[in-house]
Amino acid sequence: MAFNFEVLKQDAATGARLGKIVTAHGEVSTPVFMPVGTQATVKAMLPETLKELGAGMILSNTYHLYLRPGHQLIRDLGGLHRFMHWEGPILTDSGGFQVFSLGALRKISPEGVLFQSHIDGSRHFLSPELAVSIQEALGSDIMMCLDECTPYPATHRQAEDSLELTLQWADRSRAARRRSVQALFGIVQGGMYLDLRKKSVEALTAMAFDGYALGGVSVGEPKDSMMAVVAETAPLLPYDRPRYLMGVGTPEDIVRCVGHGIDMFDCVMPTRSARNGLLFTNQEKVVIKHARYREDPLPIDSQCDCYTCRNYSRAYLRHLYMAGEILAMILNTIHNVRHYLALMERIRDAIRADRYPAFQEHFFNTQRMTGKDTLA
Amino acid sequence: MAFNFEVLKQDAATGARLGKIVTAHGEVSTPVFMPVGTQATVKAMLPETLKELGAGMILSNTYHLYLRPGHQLIRDLGGLHRFMHWEGPILTDSGGFQVFSLGALRKISPEGVLFQSHIDGSRHFLSPELAVSIQEALGSDIMMCLDECTPYPATHRQAEDSLELTLQWADRSRAARRRSVQALFGIVQGGMYLDLRKKSVEALTAMAFDGYALGGVSVGEPKDSMMAVVAETAPLLPYDRPRYLMGVGTPEDIVRCVGHGIDMFDCVMPTRSARNGLLFTNQEKVVIKHARYREDPLPIDSQCDCYTCRNYSRAYLRHLYMAGEILAMILNTIHNVRHYLALMERIRDAIRADRYPAFQEHFFNTQRMTGKDTLA
Repeated sequence: MAFNFEVLKQDAATGARLGKIVTAHGEVSTPVFMPVGTQATVKAMLPETLKELGAGMILSNTYHLYLRPGHQLIRDLGGLHRFMHWEGPILTDSGGFQVFSLGALRKISPEGVLFQSHIDGSRHFLSPELAVSIQEALGSDIMMCLDECTPYPATHRQAEDSLELTLQWADRSRAARRRSVQALFGIVQGGMYLDLRKKSVEALTAMAFDGYALGGVSVGEPKDSMMAVVAETAPLLPYDRPRYLMGVGTPEDIVRCVGHGIDMFDCVMPTRSARNGLLFTNQEKVVIKHARYREDPLPIDSQCDCYTCRNYSRAYLRHLYMAGEILAMILNTIHNVRHYLALMERIRDAIRADRYPAFQEHFFNTQRMTGKDTLA
Repeated sequence: MAFNFEVLKQDAATGARLGKIVTAHGEVSTPVFMPVGTQATVKAMLPETLKELGAGMILSNTYHLYLRPGHQLIRDLGGLHRFMHWEGPILTDSGGFQVFSLGALRKISPEGVLFQSHIDGSRHFLSPELAVSIQEALGSDIMMCLDECTPYPATHRQAEDSLELTLQWADRSRAARRRSVQALFGIVQGGMYLDLRKKSVEALTAMAFDGYALGGVSVGEPKDSMMAVVAETAPLLPYDRPRYLMGVGTPEDIVRCVGHGIDMFDCVMPTRSARNGLLFTNQEKVVIKHARYREDPLPIDSQCDCYTCRNYSRAYLRHLYMAGEILAMILNTIHNVRHYLALMERIRDAIRADRYPAFQEHFFNTQRMTGKDTLA
């Protein structure tokens, strides 16, 4: 089935949209949160467990898979879906963000990025064409163009130069594409400068991508700046294409950004926090190692319907965590991923029922009432 | 339901027995292999997964649970079964073996053992009475008497002194017992000296325990010595009581010792090996990190019916292992545990069908044909 996206409903008072993405590996309801499966596994999760938790689409990282085990190997074994036994849709990033994060280990030129592997120091060259070729070998359902992630802070001139490079690379990515069954998304850059974000949107939409991502957020900028960029930029994007906010974020970020018209999110927060023993609830956060949970017979969150909350006490989870048991990571991840995916279900229900503003108000009132932030 | 054991069938040519153990938490077919859940979790496994793999009874370690999180805490939270969400039978050891393994950190007296915690160095005193009391707090289905595990090598005099202490402790354990719903097993010691083993059996059976274990094996002695002890001692034990060979062993050990009339086994080998990437098959062992598996599209074992073998290639499992992913430990453990439990099913089927000698012959011929040992 060819890639398709449809807005089923738009909230009247906010920009929130209920939608449906169709891919060769099934349909996904939006707004969607994608758990991150960096190395062809969402850490500590069986694919069947992820599906039971309500995961529709997952994200995997091109940079990591290119280096290990190698995209040709994955292609020869039937593609990423078969390799990792995940039959649902997969979005792959371009590898750009990871490469730029290498700092001194990479060098950017108009042609692409020369970088050294974080695993063995070997030298590699990533171009827009190679990024598409790797993602086509992986066989993901949604591919991302290689972009330069504009750092924060950046001057207007720096952000503009960076944006120009990203636009050239977007055009080259488009030209390099060989497989139409895999969607290709363009990435809006421009730093915190709204005029550059606008310019980026105009240039990218002229290239007619299957969807559009907002990049260069969650890179250290103040939360207000990020929200301003999202609020101002998302509405400029084509109504009939999915909008993806890369690497975001907290539950609060997601609830806000859905209101600005974002359809897709990904973040390592639920999985990484789980492995660190930081557990999300609708009230306060639970830092499971705290002594206060030593004899606590209650589940992490009495309102949660996940396997962990149905079967295990905080006292047991604390014991597993203190003892360094693998099961701690498994059970904690199940809970945090379910917390995120249940939130997405409630978000979609609210949009469907024409009550997204009320949902937002209730959500933030509840957060405020406890006087605590969720995990930052 | 009160503890009960019944021999359903005894092989005519060997000592192999098909049996049934009844506990308050359900029935278990014997010969049984118990996966080890040291810290109230069989590492990397959900209880539901263990059950699907065919696990009947599991073992948990009194020493570890006494130190962390503490047996009173577990009792207050409803007992070990509820704490760890395992509804099937549980056997707990006495803590003796772990304490004696502490070496310089423990001091034995007729009264009991003074030892220092491996976690925080705190000082504790374990007596036969306390060992029973801890296990009653945990609420296990089968408790073990505190014994002194006779080291190897030991002189006849050392082994005899050690045995005397174990017999005194067995008597004190019996007297300390308060809950009849939990079975209590005596432990046969005597080192590699058959006369002492015989003396041990006689003294213990006079105390009328619910079952009997052979201890002090797998402590560094030659394999032939262990087999001689098992072959000579097991038949001396009461026919109508379960016989448990502690800490054994390899698949070959199990197949041999079932032939000598052993009903129960436990060993960390399948789970620990799995985490180290050593995978059992009916032919050769698979060391998953080897480069030869890099592009291997086959499952670990084409004859295995486990979830891992049905869904994942050696190439993927090697990738997960090399990348240090938690899923490697989960999938490898599923396979190794299933390998052991499927072997136990085949063993029971063979006894039931009156073909245990033929089963043994085929088993060892297959092993020999490949010219390789399984994991030592």
